[in-house]
Amino acid sequence: MRVALLAGGTGGAKLAAGIQEEIGADLTVIANTGDDIETLGVHVSPDPDLITYWLSGEIDEDRGWGLREDTFRVLERMAEVGAPNWFSLGDRDLAACLYRREFLAAGGRLTDAAAQIARGVGATATVLPMCEEAVRTKVLTEVGRRDLQEYLILDGGKPEVHGIELDGIAEAEPTAEVLGALRAADAILIGPSNPVISIGPILAVPGMREAIASAHAPVLAVSPYVGGQVVKGPTNKFMEALGRPTTAAGVASLYAGLIDAMVVDEGDPDPPPADVPTIATSTLMDGAAGRVRLARTVLDYAATLIDA
Amino acid sequence: MRVALLAGGTGGAKLAAGIQEEIGADLTVIANTGDDIETLGVHVSPDPDLITYWLSGEIDEDRGWGLREDTFRVLERMAEVGAPNWFSLGDRDLAACLYRREFLAAGGRLTDAAAQIARGVGATATVLPMCEEAVRTKVLTEVGRRDLQEYLILDGGKPEVHGIELDGIAEAEPTAEVLGALRAADAILIGPSNPVISIGPILAVPGMREAIASAHAPVLAVSPYVGGQVVKGPTNKFMEALGRPTTAAGVASLYAGLIDAMVVDEGDPDPPPADVPTIATSTLMDGAAGRVRLARTVLDYAATLIDA
Repeated sequence: MRVALLAGGTGGAKLAAGIQEEIGADLTVIANTGDDIETLGVHVSPDPDLITYWLSGEIDEDRGWGLREDTFRVLERMAEVGAPNWFSLGDRDLAACLYRREFLAAGGRLTDAAAQIARGVGATATVLPMCEEAVRTKVLTEVGRRDLQEYLILDGGKPEVHGIELDGIAEAEPTAEVLGALRAADAILIGPSNPVISIGPILAVPGMREAIASAHAPVLAVSPYVGGQVVKGPTNKFMEALGRPTTAAGVASLYAGLIDAMVVDEGDPDPPPADVPTIATSTLMDGAAGRVRLARTVLDYAATLIDA
Repeated sequence: MRVALLAGGTGGAKLAAGIQEEIGADLTVIANTGDDIETLGVHVSPDPDLITYWLSGEIDEDRGWGLREDTFRVLERMAEVGAPNWFSLGDRDLAACLYRREFLAAGGRLTDAAAQIARGVGATATVLPMCEEAVRTKVLTEVGRRDLQEYLILDGGKPEVHGIELDGIAEAEPTAEVLGALRAADAILIGPSNPVISIGPILAVPGMREAIASAHAPVLAVSPYVGGQVVKGPTNKFMEALGRPTTAAGVASLYAGLIDAMVVDEGDPDPPPADVPTIATSTLMDGAAGRVRLARTVLDYAATLIDA
């Protein structure tokens, strides 16, 4: 089964790793690049890299980002000579981001840089940036307009969120690779990532929703809520900013008209409306076994929708 | 005594460290930037950095470049994802070069980046790039025209040298800081670096020779030849390319009309002509004590020329 998975942060990345275990190279992940940031002389793609490191098995699971047993000697030294050091990046993490920056500076495509990096570190699945154009997610907060990384890191994700803006989104378009993956997919999955700042920018790329809708594959969303809570990250603040309940039903409302079915946590207090075919399972991905178990459940459910 | 020292590679850098021991912040080093190279997304300034690391005491004396106990995790990882890896750079070494690149990209001056880095790593003396403009030393060899780093690293410094070219030299000019240091100096020293590829580019900057000649300070050159040999580097190949003897006399011939005196090694078989006041001493800088001893000898001799 060929699968196209829309994903952003940890939840989607973990599901990607589980699905890769099951179908390997038949998985293509379409990753949010709204979090991308040029800093310290490198081009950081937080979501594509997070996904890549989950796929390569190098992710630091405890920290939730970066590579296991990475060191931080470059940033420590840059701080010594006067560089800002609010944005942390391990040495081997930085290496890929420096390579990406040079690859782009030499006229290369973000898509090809991501593919090269994923190959280099041993991922089996394909990781595709959602677009080539620079889209930058800005957060409108009670203390002002923030770059997403500033909000998450400098502000600690604490200030109330009034909304988001996606700078550059109007000029963006899905790449040929993204359109090809959606066309070729037997199932299109929306991963359990933040629906607003991780999946939202992907769906906001002009032409993306149309490409998904016109694909022959069923579209299945996995709720990021586990037992009514998000496992990681400030999802609720963003859901509330959009006036959505912080539940599977709230997630379903954001994907209305796009999805054919949902997988939600069995402990979710507020399931999607009856017109959305839904299965409830434990969506907590505890360790490799947990990731594969949810992947298997999602793929099996998707298979039934293909036949339907 | 305020000293301006022209320096390039290891010999000049070691003398700079010895002089810093003696006069501290009264030392300003004017460093060759003809070796600079933009690679791997960073701006490497081999000579200014080598000098800075000798001044900060961080230099890896055994290897002859880079920082003691540095690691190479970034370059190893960049190679894994597909970057070229012929040019080696440690992680903390790279950090300064990445900082420099960003500093320049943000509109900063090479001079200010070098000062910031030297301050950051604890150098007491001032390190000044010879100019702001990009000057790039090219080597004409029996196997073709080479970037200097390509010749030294990829070619191992082995092919015969027919000459050098200094790309961009016509547009270069000494910075205000360099001119100020030469004007303010009580003594101007030419360090025991390669006269052709280390000192040559500095003296070739339009206006540099005039600025040195018009300064009130005596100009004293220290021969890089120790017992008729160079301690490190392919100096002879470049001296021969210019048809100069590989001796103190050969060095003196390149500085003719510019220097008031020389310090040569007592074992040099071919001292400068009689019209160049010269003292002979052991110019081998063996350890910190050896660097300070030569520094002391050079400064004492310079003092006699100031009085004269």
